[in-house]
Amino acid sequence: MTFTTAHVSISLDGFIAGPGQSRENPLGIGGMRLHQWHFRAGEPGYEANVAARDDLLRQRGAYVMGRNMFGPIRGEWDLEWRGWWGPEPPYHAPVYVLTHHARDPVEMEGGTTFHFVTEGFDAALAQAREAAGEREVAIAGGASTIRQALRAGAIDQLTLDIAPVLLGSGERIFDGVPDRGFEPVEVTHTRHATHVRYRVGGQPDGPVG
Amino acid sequence: MTFTTAHVSISLDGFIAGPGQSRENPLGIGGMRLHQWHFRAGEPGYEANVAARDDLLRQRGAYVMGRNMFGPIRGEWDLEWRGWWGPEPPYHAPVYVLTHHARDPVEMEGGTTFHFVTEGFDAALAQAREAAGEREVAIAGGASTIRQALRAGAIDQLTLDIAPVLLGSGERIFDGVPDRGFEPVEVTHTRHATHVRYRVGGQPDGPVG
Repeated sequence: MTFTTAHVSISLDGFIAGPGQSRENPLGIGGMRLHQWHFRAGEPGYEANVAARDDLLRQRGAYVMGRNMFGPIRGEWDLEWRGWWGPEPPYHAPVYVLTHHARDPVEMEGGTTFHFVTEGFDAALAQAREAAGEREVAIAGGASTIRQALRAGAIDQLTLDIAPVLLGSGERIFDGVPDRGFEPVEVTHTRHATHVRYRVGGQPDGPVG
Repeated sequence: MTFTTAHVSISLDGFIAGPGQSRENPLGIGGMRLHQWHFRAGEPGYEANVAARDDLLRQRGAYVMGRNMFGPIRGEWDLEWRGWWGPEPPYHAPVYVLTHHARDPVEMEGGTTFHFVTEGFDAALAQAREAAGEREVAIAGGASTIRQALRAGAIDQLTLDIAPVLLGSGERIFDGVPDRGFEPVEVTHTRHATHVRYRVGGQPDGPVG
């Protein structure tokens, strides 16, 4: 089985995006604060965050991405929309985007191609695993796609960057997710975030129930 | 100002007690799983949890406790009720219990006295600080009392034992809490929990907003 991971930043109160997401503010109100550790990694005081950033940006064989992460969440997306990331997105691999609207693949610079999948999460994951071969598949986000992946038992390793921030409301990832066992296998931290890598399906205390 | 702390175990999905709390199951369904790291600290595989347990049980000068943590949460409590902890509770200090029902103090073995405060959280905290003098006050729980304390800005240090467990529903502690800044100042972990000590009011990324 293809090793499948997800790596997301989460607030102390459990949100991976703030309220009021929009084209102007895709992470929602306050959502950018979850990612300070990342954008500033390597700066003075943020040196120890580099390893977590490197893990986040580690090259995967393919990605699965939700519609809301790919484009603005209100209304139909513009068929000219090519993602938030400019001409050369940081994926450098096929990205399978969940959507209700069929669209031809969009080939970007640097090896990223966005494929649009209208048959749902399982189909997108199957295509990503096929494309990745022996390499890893990452569930890129957003919240609802990670929830779907967790509910489906599709994630082998979940890394959370727990940012010391309260957002008050927004998008959660664990709602409706059955507990298959999470085992913390690596924990690193700085003043700016606590990074916990969980093996999903680990049961440190014996059978879950 | 008296140094005021809280130390609670919390699930990966943000609950400090499960659903369906009752006299028979005061932590709610699954809630006991949050505390495995504590009850088993020192056993093989749990050695590194001893420091977190020692912090949890560290002697404070006085405690503030919610009504639901002191006694069963359904119906009027029995005036004979003397807490969940048997004749010698682990507090060894005055404990100020929030309640709507006046009651004479209950003196237990080992130095614990339960005082019943009907004037609300601020009054209970003031009495606890008075009793503690130079020593520390702990907000013992449960969830609603910790929420009140966080909302009031009364907590200087919050320690979370993040248990690798999903409870699905139950009691949260951050709802309606304004973000005064949380700075992780110490992180330890085992396979069974990630322990994060936050300085509340810390602002590692500059002004919060």
